[in-house]
Formats: sequence, structure tokens, C-alpha cells
Amino acid sequence: MHPDDGALRKGLALAEELFGRIGSASFDGAGFTRAAYGPGEQMAHDIVAEVARDLDLEISVDAALNLAITLKGKERGRPLIIGSHLDAVPQGGNFDGLAGVLAGIATLAAFREAGVVPNMDIATLCIRSEENAWFGAQHVGSRAMFGKLSEETLDRARRVDTSRTLRDHMLEAGADLSRIGPGKLLLDPHRVGGYLELHIEQADKLRDAGMPLGIVRALRGNRRCVRMVCRGEHGHSGALARSDRHDAVFAVADLITRMDEFWRIAEEEKDEDLVLTFGRVSTDPGTHAVTVVPGFVETCFDARSISAEVLAQVIVELEAAMAEIAARRGVAFEPAAIHYDTPALMDGNFQAALLKGCGRLGIASMPMISGAGHDAGDFAAAGIRSAMIFVRSENGSHNPNEHMEFADFARGVELMSWFAEEMSQGEIA
Amino acid sequence: MHPDDGALRKGLALAEELFGRIGSASFDGAGFTRAAYGPGEQMAHDIVAEVARDLDLEISVDAALNLAITLKGKERGRPLIIGSHLDAVPQGGNFDGLAGVLAGIATLAAFREAGVVPNMDIATLCIRSEENAWFGAQHVGSRAMFGKLSEETLDRARRVDTSRTLRDHMLEAGADLSRIGPGKLLLDPHRVGGYLELHIEQADKLRDAGMPLGIVRALRGNRRCVRMVCRGEHGHSGALARSDRHDAVFAVADLITRMDEFWRIAEEEKDEDLVLTFGRVSTDPGTHAVTVVPGFVETCFDARSISAEVLAQVIVELEAAMAEIAARRGVAFEPAAIHYDTPALMDGNFQAALLKGCGRLGIASMPMISGAGHDAGDFAAAGIRSAMIFVRSENGSHNPNEHMEFADFARGVELMSWFAEEMSQGEIA
Repeated sequence: MHPDDGALRKGLALAEELFGRIGSASFDGAGFTRAAYGPGEQMAHDIVAEVARDLDLEISVDAALNLAITLKGKERGRPLIIGSHLDAVPQGGNFDGLAGVLAGIATLAAFREAGVVPNMDIATLCIRSEENAWFGAQHVGSRAMFGKLSEETLDRARRVDTSRTLRDHMLEAGADLSRIGPGKLLLDPHRVGGYLELHIEQADKLRDAGMPLGIVRALRGNRRCVRMVCRGEHGHSGALARSDRHDAVFAVADLITRMDEFWRIAEEEKDEDLVLTFGRVSTDPGTHAVTVVPGFVETCFDARSISAEVLAQVIVELEAAMAEIAARRGVAFEPAAIHYDTPALMDGNFQAALLKGCGRLGIASMPMISGAGHDAGDFAAAGIRSAMIFVRSENGSHNPNEHMEFADFARGVELMSWFAEEMSQGEIA
Repeated sequence: MHPDDGALRKGLALAEELFGRIGSASFDGAGFTRAAYGPGEQMAHDIVAEVARDLDLEISVDAALNLAITLKGKERGRPLIIGSHLDAVPQGGNFDGLAGVLAGIATLAAFREAGVVPNMDIATLCIRSEENAWFGAQHVGSRAMFGKLSEETLDRARRVDTSRTLRDHMLEAGADLSRIGPGKLLLDPHRVGGYLELHIEQADKLRDAGMPLGIVRALRGNRRCVRMVCRGEHGHSGALARSDRHDAVFAVADLITRMDEFWRIAEEEKDEDLVLTFGRVSTDPGTHAVTVVPGFVETCFDARSISAEVLAQVIVELEAAMAEIAARRGVAFEPAAIHYDTPALMDGNFQAALLKGCGRLGIASMPMISGAGHDAGDFAAAGIRSAMIFVRSENGSHNPNEHMEFADFARGVELMSWFAEEMSQGEIA
């Protein structure tokens, strides 16, 4: 039995109230700030826990302080987890993260209101410290859950506002670090039925397509280099001939243009998924000038794709281009550390079910790719069948102007509760 | 009659002593600093004037404080002017500028020692404030002489170390500003027989060719833009597809690569004289990051050529490239002010005479181009027949490591005195 419209409306009304309540409590005058393992995130956890108690839902907190709110099913075990996070970047928006948790709360509240007891547990999971912005380390709660949080991260990652370590802040917030570490599971992936996460899109594809919802096919992985340095030789701009140049700006422009062309071919001619960004480029502020041949450029690199093979090709091309340009132009690219995250595929049957649900409910939707990382990627990597619902949004994310129409959110919650009910009925393969 | 070897040796010994004396007095611990219209330049002027008095040469100072030291000829008027400057950029080298003045002093001293009285006056001119580094305004002394120093420059140009205006510093040094201004000549070009300037090369062409001297064919002019801004849109590096990008870094890399290719074709395929430099490139330090699509890039541009036509083509290409890239990539290049200096051709007969002199004296030399500007360009622009002798140097210029072998300087002085004698004898057409 599906929660009826009245029950759903009750759940949505609760979510709407909570957007306002949590938003007001985290507005800092310029944007919405909820520090990971800090006061803002904790405030949101406290409010959600209080609401869960009012709804008579089961509450549990793991060693990393991830908060699970469970609607008990007829049988325990193999729950459907509806997950998201409650931290928000400094002066960020109110919807990134919060929308996913409140969709879970609205769904559970609708089931409660309708008096529907599902066949398996349905849990809304508030995952800690998802945003990279706070500690320069992302998905901390998920990684702690799946035994992937290293001692090095605990000790090296420092929160941007306090400069204190992740270890410090986790201990202060009450985490049990003795139970967290490589290989130590806080959640056994084999005992989870599935993972579903709703999130604002953070781009304009749904808006441009005129659709309220997207069903995520895959989350892009990345190859990333936070600092790449090209060294040439400074010199007099009027005196140094072309053949005598070791010009770091021409060399880096050449590299960027070559990678841009690689991207164009990958996308237009090979239909491969890829985005490339050189987000930072700078000559040396201490020596650069209009009449000086630039002998130094610093840049960085971010490549993302749902295909691990394409990402590998990007690095092959990048390194080949650097070697060729260095030899031809008499410059040196310093060896740079390349970090990577693997792409994550969402579960095919879950995707099909969600698309089918949109059809049944009359919701326009389309399959799409997530360019950004989400906790869903960590759940998928842990072997849990996972899916994501994107909600049409405007003005990107991580800024106070990020926007989501509540009506679109409501369609997402409708789809979510439909999916939960289908899964409860054993209708999803 | 040519000054004999003994007389030349005396002149060179004096120059060698003066390199040491002026260098010691202007060494600041890191490099050689002689502030234009400031204590360093004045110190050098004072020493040179004192030496001139000892040699019984005529001394005069014009309204802009340019110092002329004249060896009187049998007839006055239509002098050969041997010019250069005594200012040196902050923490610069000892040879840029000073070598030209001391070559003139050595030449006059050799004539004196030999008791040779030329048929016309030969003057060594110490020109004020040549370097752009002090006031962001170059060739101040020359421009004042030829009525090309504007009120705006006097009031807007501020010295980098004091932040006080050029007007202030000129007045403080004793200049008579009532006699300086647009159209007011301190030197009548029609009454000058010729201008000769010796300068270190500032690049490695002579070193690479194994020749001590170069005879300058032309001084490059330039088209220069001190600030060019490209605006796109910031965004999430993972979420923004290629078609949704307004990426200022790709746009500027595209522009730089396109201009680099224009340069390659001009040089390799059309054999045109050109150098191009984008000396400064920077994304916005306040917002750039490895995961942010860059929406802002600032750069600058310097093109130099001996051909005014090539310089005009560069600007046509630059503007066409900007328009095409802006339309294709959805970015905007802000209109930028382009400053220009016209190229200057050295006198053909003077060049031929200098090359002939090298042959007579057994000095290996070659014709070449000056990438940097010099006072000789202002004299040529004023209609005075002008020439330049470049002396082999190392480590560029404007730094304490700029280097010139004294033996190479001596060959330059030998050529200079030969030229002065030939001109005195009416042997130069």
C-alpha cells in the first residue's frame, strides 16, 4: 500500500517546515553555513533527531556520529537506506545535502501518517562531513562507515575555519575513534538492501530540458592535480627571439589548448563522457611584468568521467603533451602528484525502477550523469546497490543563491516513497 | 688623424676606472641602483662632469638636466653626439646605459690624449631617466629634448621608490620645467650631425655567433596592452558540460596559442620581424580553485617589430581572435587600451660605415635588431641620422648578473673613435 496523497502532503509539510527551521538556524548573514563536525551540522542533526522522536522512529548514532532514523519494517535487516548529509559549505546554500535528508524524513513521515508498515526497514541516514570544503577531505562519514578513513586523513586534514584536525573535531563532537580505521566497518554492506539519495542537480540540464527530476546513471570519477608547475626562463620580452624563448606561458597555453582539443574529440567524435578544467593559472606575481618573458606558471588540473578508461587516457595524453611541449619549447613541467577517485555506476535495476516510477506518477524525467561526487558513490563502491534522484535546481550549488522549487522537491519525494513501497513489495529486481 | 693605440689605451683605462668608481658608488648590496632624477643618477653625472673638467672638455646642462660634454671641433655646430644614460633600474646591472656614456668619454679622452682636434664638435651626452622602471615613463630626457614630454606624464608618472611625481623629482633635481613641454625643443635636430649609441646587447645573439659587436639595423616598435581581461562564468568543474562552459582559461589559452601560431608563421614562413609576449596570466586569486570553472583571467600583451605594418597586422589578428573566441566560447574580452611605440630605422650610411670600420679594424660583427627601446629611437624619430653599436653581453640586462667583457667594450670604443674620425674627415656620406 502506497502512502496516500494526504499522508504525503503531511510529510512534505514537515519537510517544508524543517527547510525553514534549519535554514534560519544556519544563516550567517551572507549564506548558509553548517560546519562539518561543528555547531551547524550538529544543530541540524539535533533538529532531525527531535523530529524523529516525535514520529516515534528508531534513532541510532554510529561511531562516526552518522545518525540513522529507522522506520521499522515487518522484518528487520536489509534496509533501504535513504541517505544524504547535513553539513553545508561556508556561506553555501540551504538545499545541497539538506534536501536529501528531508526527502527521507518526509517519506518516513508519510509512511507513518498512512500507517503503512513496510516489509523491510526504511532508514534515513544523516551522513557526516560530506563536503570537501571543510577539511579538504570529503565523504568522511561514509568513508568511516566503510573502513576507508585513514589515520593520515584524521591527523592531516584541518578544518578551514579552526585549523584544528579532523581527529580533534571528531573527538570533540563525541565520535569513537577506536572503532574507526582502515578495514573497520560500521555498516556491513551485505546487510543493506539498497541506497537511495536525492540531491539538487547543481547544474542547468534539468532546467534546460524542462524536467523536474533526473535519474543518475553514474557518478563521475576524477583525476586531479592540485598543483602543476611549468618552469622556463625569464628574459627581456623585446630581446628574446622565438628560438631563444623558454616561455612558460606559451608552453602552458599550448598544453591547455591541446587538452581542450582532446576533450572536444572525446565528446564530439567519440561520444565519451568527460569534463576538463584548469581552474587556476598564474605566472609568478613576484617577477611577472608586461615586458618580461614569463619563466614560471603554476596551474592545476581536474578531469572527470564516468569511464575509468577515459580518465586513464586523459593522463596518458596529459603526460605525452607535457613531454612533447617541454622538449619543443625548452621548458620543464615538474612531476605532479595526481589524485584520483574512481567513477561509480548506479544500479541498473534501481534506475529502471525509478524511470518506471516517473512514468507511473506522470513526472517528466531523464537519465543523467552526476559530475560531482556524492555519498552514493561510496555506497556503490562498497558494493551496495545505489541510486540517485536529481532535482531541478538553479544557480549551481555551494552558494546562497542555489535554488530548488519546492514543487520539484515534492515530485522527488513522491517518487522516493513510490520506490520504497515497490521495494517493500518485492517489485524491484 | 686617428687617435693612436696609446691614446686609445689611455681612454679605455679611464673608462675602466669609471666603471669601478660609479659601480661601487651605486651598489646597494644586491645590485646596482641609480634612481632617475635621483641620487644614483646624479652621483654618476657628477663623476662624469668632474672627469670632463679634468680633460678640459666643455660642459653644458640643458633644462631637463641632460649633461653634454663636448670636445670642440675646428668648426662648431653639426656635432656628432655619442649618447647614453646613467640611470639604472632598481638592483640592476652596472653596464646597461653606463657603457654607452663611458664609451663616449673614452673616445673623447683618446682624442684629447692624441691631441687630435676633429673638424666638428664631438659630444658625449648623458641623457636623463631612460629606464621605464623608475617612472613607468621611459626616455624622459630625450623626450624633453625633442618637445615630447607631456604635462600629463609630468604629473601622472610617479617614481616607484618614492611615489612622488616626475614633476616633483625633476624640480627637486633642478630642472627648468618652464622650458619643457610639447613642441619646445632643447636641441634642434637640424643642427645635429649624427647620433651614435653603444649598448650591451641584452640577449645572446652575439655570444652565440661568437662576435664581439653588432651593428643595429632597427629598433623594434611595439604594441602593448598592460591589462587584458577575459570574463566567463564561474561554475562547478564536475557539473558543467563542455557546451555549458564559459571558461576564461580555455578562452585565454586559445587566444595565446593562436597568437603563438601567428608569430610562428610570421617568422618561419614570412620571414617577418616579430616578438610576442604574454608576460602575466592570472585567474582570480579570490575565487579560483581546482574544482571551479574559472570565470576570470587577467593577462597582458607585448608585441614588438621593426615593421609598423607587422605590428598593425598583430593587432588585427588579436582583435579577430578575441571576437571569434568570445563568440564561440561565450566569454567576453573587455576592451583594452593598446599603447604603441613606432619602430625606428637606423641610418643606412651610418650602418654601412660601422660595418666597414669593423672590417678595417678586424672586428667580427653582424647587423642586428634591437628588441628593446633606446634613446637612439627618439633621436631617429626626431629626424637625426642615428646608429647603435651593440656589445656582446651575457645574462640579459636589468639584473646584477648582466655581464660584458671589457675587451669587447674596448673593440666598441675602437670602432666608435674610428667612426668619429671618419665623420670628421667627411668620409661618411
